[in-house]
This record gives sequence, C-alpha cells and structure tokens, in this order.
Amino acid sequence: MPPNELRKDYLLNRWVVIATERARRPTDLAKNRTQNIQTTPCPLCVGNENMTPPAVLLYLKEVDKIKPTQDPSVGERPKNWLIRTIPNLYPAFTPPKQAGYVEQIFSSKKHGDAIGHHEVIVESPNHDETPANAKLTQFELVINAYVSRYRVLSTKPYVKYVSIFRNFGMEAGASLSHVHSQIIAMPLIPATIQEEQVAVKTHRKVRGTCIYCDIIEQERNGPRHIFENEAFLVFTPYASINPLEFWILPKKHAANIENLTRTETKAFAAALKISLNALKSVVNDPPYNYGIHQSIRDNSYHWHLEVYPKLTTWAGFEKSTGVYINTVTPETAAESLRKAINSTA
Amino acid sequence: MPPNELRKDYLLNRWVVIATERARRPTDLAKNRTQNIQTTPCPLCVGNENMTPPAVLLYLKEVDKIKPTQDPSVGERPKNWLIRTIPNLYPAFTPPKQAGYVEQIFSSKKHGDAIGHHEVIVESPNHDETPANAKLTQFELVINAYVSRYRVLSTKPYVKYVSIFRNFGMEAGASLSHVHSQIIAMPLIPATIQEEQVAVKTHRKVRGTCIYCDIIEQERNGPRHIFENEAFLVFTPYASINPLEFWILPKKHAANIENLTRTETKAFAAALKISLNALKSVVNDPPYNYGIHQSIRDNSYHWHLEVYPKLTTWAGFEKSTGVYINTVTPETAAESLRKAINSTA
Repeated sequence: MPPNELRKDYLLNRWVVIATERARRPTDLAKNRTQNIQTTPCPLCVGNENMTPPAVLLYLKEVDKIKPTQDPSVGERPKNWLIRTIPNLYPAFTPPKQAGYVEQIFSSKKHGDAIGHHEVIVESPNHDETPANAKLTQFELVINAYVSRYRVLSTKPYVKYVSIFRNFGMEAGASLSHVHSQIIAMPLIPATIQEEQVAVKTHRKVRGTCIYCDIIEQERNGPRHIFENEAFLVFTPYASINPLEFWILPKKHAANIENLTRTETKAFAAALKISLNALKSVVNDPPYNYGIHQSIRDNSYHWHLEVYPKLTTWAGFEKSTGVYINTVTPETAAESLRKAINSTA
Repeated sequence: MPPNELRKDYLLNRWVVIATERARRPTDLAKNRTQNIQTTPCPLCVGNENMTPPAVLLYLKEVDKIKPTQDPSVGERPKNWLIRTIPNLYPAFTPPKQAGYVEQIFSSKKHGDAIGHHEVIVESPNHDETPANAKLTQFELVINAYVSRYRVLSTKPYVKYVSIFRNFGMEAGASLSHVHSQIIAMPLIPATIQEEQVAVKTHRKVRGTCIYCDIIEQERNGPRHIFENEAFLVFTPYASINPLEFWILPKKHAANIENLTRTETKAFAAALKISLNALKSVVNDPPYNYGIHQSIRDNSYHWHLEVYPKLTTWAGFEKSTGVYINTVTPETAAESLRKAINSTA
C-alpha cells in the first residue's frame, strides 16, 4: 500500500492526512439519525415570541412584498413573521453599557471584556423547515437577513469582526431544533481570519493576485468541483479537514457580504441550498456547521462560506497538534456531491 | 450583568470567552453515560492477539519483576502480557519503504507522504480497566511504555514529532472501549507546537526565562491550582477552552519525556491518575482526550500534558473563527477538582 497523503491548506499552516489506507466512501458515513424530540415549548415557534427578547429585525408576511421592519417598541412581538432576528438569551458577547465605547482588543493584551452582539436568526416560522425543504425564496430571506444585520453590526465602533454561522443538528451543537443561524459581532479579529489575511497579503506581494481568485481558477475545472452558477463556485478544498467539507466562493472579489446585490443574494442562496441538499442526500441528512469568513476593513480579503459536515470526531491527536486526519478524499467527496446534484437536476 | 471575559492563551494567539453570563457549575455538565456495549470480540483483549499485528513492545507478567521484551519473531504473540504496544491496523502514518529515507516536510511545501508510525498501547489485559480503577503500578507501566516508544521513534531520521495521546470514551473518538493510548510519529512539527515554540523563544528573548517555568510559579499559589507533588503541578489554564480542562507540567524543565527518571515516572502517573479520578467524580466519568506536547530537538521547549474533557461541542463559531466559548470558569473548575481530590485523600 502507498503511504497516505499529507496536504497543507491553501492559506493556513494546517496539515491534514488524507487517509486513503483507511479510505471510506462518503456513503459509509451515512447513518440513522435520531430525531430531535422537542418536549418543551419551542421558544422560536410562532406564538412563543414572548419567550425571547423583542426582535431587532423582522420580515413580515404581506400579500405583495416583503418589508423588513425594525421592531420599534420593546413590547411589540408580531406573530405574522417570516424571519425573526432576536438577541441571544444567553449571549457570549454583550453591548457596552456606555455610549461611545470604543475599546478594542489588541494582540498585545491578554484579556478584555466580551463586548459585542450575539443574535439568533430564526429562519422560518415552521419548526421543521430546513434549507433542504424550504422554498428558495424563504432561504433568500435568510441570506438577506445576514446582509442586513451585517450592515448594522459592522459599523459599531467596538466591532472588529462579524461571525455568521449555523449549527445544524444536535451533534453539531444546535441546542434548539428549530432551524436558526447565529451572528456574533466581536471586538477582535479571530485567529483563523488573521492567519488567512496574512497569507492573502503574502500571496499578493509575491504573485500580485488574490489567492482566493486564483483558487477559483484552479478548482473550477478540477476534480474537486461540485457546482457553479453565474456568481458562485462550490468545491471541496484540497486539504479538507472534514469528510465532505465544501466551500462556496463568490467569483467577484469582495471582502465581505455588505454589498451583495439582489441577484448575488439569490445566486448565493441557490448555491448553498443545492449543495446542502446534495450533502443531505449523500450522507442521510447529517449534522453540520457552516460559517462565513469575511473582513470588515481589509479589502484584499475575499469572503466565502465554509461548510463542515459533522461525520467524525476530532480527538486527542487533532486537539493536541492542530493536524487532522480525514478518511474521505476531497476528490471522492466532490464526485458524490456532484452526482447527487445531477441526479436531482 | 457585567460583560463576559475574553482571555488569551499563555502562548497561542487563541482567545476564549469565559461565559460567566451563562455560567455553569461543573456538576451541571455531569450526565448519565451510556455504557459501551462490545458486541464483537475485542481485538485488544487477552486471547485475541491474533486479531492485531505482532507487538513492538511487550511488558510480560512475571513473579518478581517487569521485563520489557521486544517481540522477536513476527508470529509470536504471548498471552501473559501487562502492556502491549502494537502497530495500528489502520495507520494514519506508515514507515518508509526504503531504508535510509530522510525526506521531511518543510513549511514551504504543500504536500508530502504521511511517513511515520502509528501505534496503539493497550494499557491493561482487563477490558474494563481504566486509569481510575487501575492500580498505580499498572498505570506507571503505561507511562513507561510512552517513554520507551518515544525513545525508539524519536531517533528515526524521518521523524520530527512524536504525538502521544489517549481518547477515552466513544464521544471523545475512541473506536474501541478497551482502554488504550496511541502514538503517532510524524514527519513535521505540528502547527500548535510550532506556535508554542515561537512564543517560548519570544518570551525567552524578552524575559530571559522559560514561559512554562514562569507559568508554574504563577499558577502554584493561585485559584487555578489543583494538585502538586514533588515533580508535577496540575492546574486549570487561565484561558481554558474546554470546561474542566487541566494541564500537568513537570517542575523540572525538559523538552520531552525521553529522560524521565523512574521517580518522575511514578510522580507523573500519580498526578495524572489522581486528576483523572477527580474529573471522573466531578462530572460522572466523562469522555476526554489528552495529549503530550513536547519537542524532540528544541531544548528551550517545556513538555507537558493537556487534558480536554469532552463535555460540550465545538460548533460553527469555534470552527470558523478559532475563538472559543467556555461556560465553566477555570477557577470554578479548579475548585471542584481540588475538593474531589481532598474528599478522597
């Protein structure tokens, strides 16, 4: 048997063993999922709005159009909503008490206050709706809410980064089964993004190009290509650390989602929904996490979304070294996801 | 409510939110554990030695003494063992085919062969024995096997790092319930260790001291102290990213476990067993991972062991940012573990 392959991430100092000696077909990782049983009233369901703080952003049902409405009064909690964005009841980051707060965390410091915002985007009034069975128009509203809240939060003087992510399924850390995303606005640039920014700058200095734009060119026609529309490319990254991990990159260079157009929003929602559906069909609706990588002020950065299916467990080796073992090759994963998309197209 | 606290790791560019607003008592994380049910014959049990490759290191039962025996013949698989070290049947890293192989992975490279070794240390002939119920003498043999295999593997010309770790419990990634540790010898220095080495060098340049030696002085008398004997200190680190995480540091500066004396081996086994017992009693025998951090050639490094209880799930936020949220303060965790040790002392 040949040795396994060691691969380095495009940007990060992060290595993964692509363990072909114990190679798995993607479908080997499919398993029966236990249904979440909701025994207590769901605080994210219609009718239970009083169980959460008032919304900071509401998309309300109307006959002809969708109108975003900033909830004006603390007590008002309308029930005719399509999307509801609320402060997290147990926030990791909280707004400053004083107006004009601008203190930020610098790398020379060892501690600070967790100043910022922590919000929950309830993605549908229907408890059991998921991106897979949601209408595309509903999922576009979700992306629209991401953009809308990003615009508000990224301008706060104490905010250096806005993290937008979804935990899907209990095994992936979702504590509520009603489908939702989360937004955390924080006073420091996270380590992963910092390291990516340094790599972007180094690449630009050496090659004169954006490394992510170059990755798009490289992966478009290769064995890791999954899906592509006019504005987005979906592929499995060369050094995936999770089985069936995939990334979605905008073809147009932009540092963040702030200026996503209506057309781009639709294309992004479509690319994400199609890919998540493929993942669902290949490995039986697995738990997963996804997160948007972006930068508020560094225009050389290229925003994108990374999806991490939760099909294996990172254990002592990964946690103590920062080196990973992946038992499904990115090329095999891409092939399975492509086939799943083509079979339903 | 005051804001949560952001803390930075002693060495790494790694931040954690100590989420006191949703603070948990350590015992809140205790839960009923499902017993592993072993339906197939256990390949690590006595009598099933033919299910695994021949051992590379055996400690055999004798009346008067423990004699390490290098298994001389491929076919021989004695059954009267106390500790058995075998090649992993599904290795992530494999030895080179040619003698004299010296290629190593350098940071400028993007890929390479996963050349190295991947071994399993079977810690006891008794399927249900754990560090908690094992005799201390048996656990000393486990540490002895770590040292013994480290000495062999670290001298291979293609090995740059030796990772020694244990996954305990299915939720922490253990695929076999028979208690075992693993050793991976690999051709690159892992990212986490690299980053620690840089921080060690920077600290030495600025302060003239070893940062880990300084940490020992700082944590010995503080609120995160758990246990101490003549040679080791156990404490919860200031910026723990896992609830009830603790580290064990040798008081004597050494880069790796190569020259651990017999007395130090006993002290290390005792410190680890006592701490793991405390963890078991506080949160009902939780799954956990631990890993030794060390360096083969950089003598400025200070080896230690880090224990990560698996009580929560890292989700989209942690995975996409490298920033963590910990709902148990290290000070509360240390207090619980100290009490558990004192109540059984």
